[in-house]
Amino acid sequence: MSAPLVEPSAVLTPQDEVERRLSGLRETLRRRDLDAALILQNADLYYYTGTVQQSYLYVPADGDVTLFTRKLVERARLESPLDVTPLPGLRALPGLVAERYGAAPGRMGLELDVLPVGQFRRLEALFGGASFEDLGPDIVRQRAVKSAWEVERIRGAAAISEQLCGLVPDLLEEGLTEAEFAGRVEAQARRLGHEGVIRMRGFNQEMFYGQLLTGVSGEAASYLDTPLAGTGLSPAVPQGVSLRRIGRGEPVVLDFVSVHNGYIADFTRIFSLGELPHALVDAYRAALEIQELVVGMAAPGVTCRALYEAAVDAAGAARLGDCFMGRGPGQVRFIGHGVGIELDELPVLTTSDLALEECMVFALEPKFVVPGLGAIGIENTYCVRERGLEVLTTAPEGLFEL
Amino acid sequence: MSAPLVEPSAVLTPQDEVERRLSGLRETLRRRDLDAALILQNADLYYYTGTVQQSYLYVPADGDVTLFTRKLVERARLESPLDVTPLPGLRALPGLVAERYGAAPGRMGLELDVLPVGQFRRLEALFGGASFEDLGPDIVRQRAVKSAWEVERIRGAAAISEQLCGLVPDLLEEGLTEAEFAGRVEAQARRLGHEGVIRMRGFNQEMFYGQLLTGVSGEAASYLDTPLAGTGLSPAVPQGVSLRRIGRGEPVVLDFVSVHNGYIADFTRIFSLGELPHALVDAYRAALEIQELVVGMAAPGVTCRALYEAAVDAAGAARLGDCFMGRGPGQVRFIGHGVGIELDELPVLTTSDLALEECMVFALEPKFVVPGLGAIGIENTYCVRERGLEVLTTAPEGLFEL
Repeated sequence: MSAPLVEPSAVLTPQDEVERRLSGLRETLRRRDLDAALILQNADLYYYTGTVQQSYLYVPADGDVTLFTRKLVERARLESPLDVTPLPGLRALPGLVAERYGAAPGRMGLELDVLPVGQFRRLEALFGGASFEDLGPDIVRQRAVKSAWEVERIRGAAAISEQLCGLVPDLLEEGLTEAEFAGRVEAQARRLGHEGVIRMRGFNQEMFYGQLLTGVSGEAASYLDTPLAGTGLSPAVPQGVSLRRIGRGEPVVLDFVSVHNGYIADFTRIFSLGELPHALVDAYRAALEIQELVVGMAAPGVTCRALYEAAVDAAGAARLGDCFMGRGPGQVRFIGHGVGIELDELPVLTTSDLALEECMVFALEPKFVVPGLGAIGIENTYCVRERGLEVLTTAPEGLFEL
Repeated sequence: MSAPLVEPSAVLTPQDEVERRLSGLRETLRRRDLDAALILQNADLYYYTGTVQQSYLYVPADGDVTLFTRKLVERARLESPLDVTPLPGLRALPGLVAERYGAAPGRMGLELDVLPVGQFRRLEALFGGASFEDLGPDIVRQRAVKSAWEVERIRGAAAISEQLCGLVPDLLEEGLTEAEFAGRVEAQARRLGHEGVIRMRGFNQEMFYGQLLTGVSGEAASYLDTPLAGTGLSPAVPQGVSLRRIGRGEPVVLDFVSVHNGYIADFTRIFSLGELPHALVDAYRAALEIQELVVGMAAPGVTCRALYEAAVDAAGAARLGDCFMGRGPGQVRFIGHGVGIELDELPVLTTSDLALEECMVFALEPKFVVPGLGAIGIENTYCVRERGLEVLTTAPEGLFEL
């Protein structure tokens, strides 16, 4: 008896997926007149290869790709449909590339948006004659449009969120600390297959399951580029749950990020023990109306700016503009963000001229922070279809007053 | 009623701590003939300022430091003992620096080991005339030696691990999946104040609570630079728990990373339902003996290499050399690593000539992978004292056969 190296229930990335994605990358290389790309970062590796084993993916503008893997070769071979070449160490890479591809690359594309300077300088020294260009924005742009296979993975993550929603009534109790309640919810998420690690592309960005905020905790903004942040347990990780005890008649905001097979669904639902104050119920209704408005407008060709401005205008018309998407210095200037392998993908629903395309997937999260009462709002993950949005997070949208 | 912005139970970094750390950084600047440092990364920001609010810490070689904070200023002021200057955006930084310090810096130190190239190039453009040097290794070196205050924080994290140990007998049941059992343990950790986010400095390194591995899952090596990795739930996050069901007579490895007030303690204990096979019990005894050997040798002035080689020799003498710290391509070449604000700190107990110093803190983790049976071993977090090691993770070290 020995260990399986891949969890038997896991879904492997199919060969045609990987090939289609690599074709897209090759098109970018040719358009930008680059000889090759070298892909290193976990999220991008998973996207282009199906594995995140310690690897360097070499993609020539023309010709076959090579996945050079340092550790664990055996596992990369099981996980990825690509041919895997063992790599003894980074220093061996230029020699192996030259051996396989003849000439050394002149112009190379790298993920300069995420690659640390130290790592980059090592590559610069190793590929002596080459010049380097940033492929990050192109990769991010390519990854914004999902395949049918990817949408199914996101649906798998959404299914965890939906099941959690049904379990909350059994988990929520008056007097629990936010941390204690979060632990109960997260334990169920793990049982349902949540993978834990939530990847973000932005430097210094970090996220742990999302934000579970109750009552006035919903008012605490922080370092995050999110409408809600929470107090957190200390200044070291100043976001998320605190040791505040959950009371009756206050909003319990479950802003939860599920991850399954490497793909993310983001959603928010509101629970409470007993009835919520009218001001919060009114704000929730406004959030639902803004959601309806944006969903009604969104379609291929519509810009992010149009959606963002319509939402801001609607919040203003409801006389809730100053508490829409946070308050004061905590207010953020977007109403949604792309999700996929990373939580901070394109499209960002902000003052951006990026137009929606079919099969883009994003979370839309109209939220309000009501002074003295806390936060309230809704969030769903949607896929852009030919004639509008398909919602992937399908839990009921009413307030769950328990 | 409004939200507290800092959890009332949180321990704030005291002013004298921050001042001592900044003095150390200034010494580095003078030694390396740098005019100033600009600190950006969350872990380093927390270390030098007590806050991770979106900030740029400007440290001149001589003169007062300034914490330029973009978001959230109010919170940075509560969390940090330093003076906080609001920063409207990165573009305003050079102007504010010039205004406060007169001349623009000529030679600047940055965290080039973690700073993405894109971010670096933006700073390069903004501070036009300056040249830039990598401060990363100096910062990492300084952070390796902990203050008494920091050791207390690590002890706080260790207390979570110790309490979990006592709870496991009530949480572990035959037939649970690893993921389900992990969820139960993690829920308790959250209740006890675990902060969730585990910071690592290395590019592409990621960790979620540690590794909870049962039976043959302990044999699955992966991309991580760790002796044990596990299958994980999919190739997207190929580490940690799987959906394998826990049986009787097999090792349940609880390799658990606790985080409290931003500081980490790392420890491993072994549980089982019923008795473990002799081969595993023998390997566990060998791990305890190696731990005893290393602890007996370790003291200020002793090199990492000496400790590492003694451990490897002892494993060889016990005829367990080929399964010590992993097997085959999964074997790693270290027996321990520094812990603090990040999981991958100095000292690394490998073939390194770095000598231990008083108040360095590291996890020592002699572990074996026994083919067909799984992994076993022990891990504790120690502080180097004048005459030897003080253990910070104080849970009992016997096998917990339930």
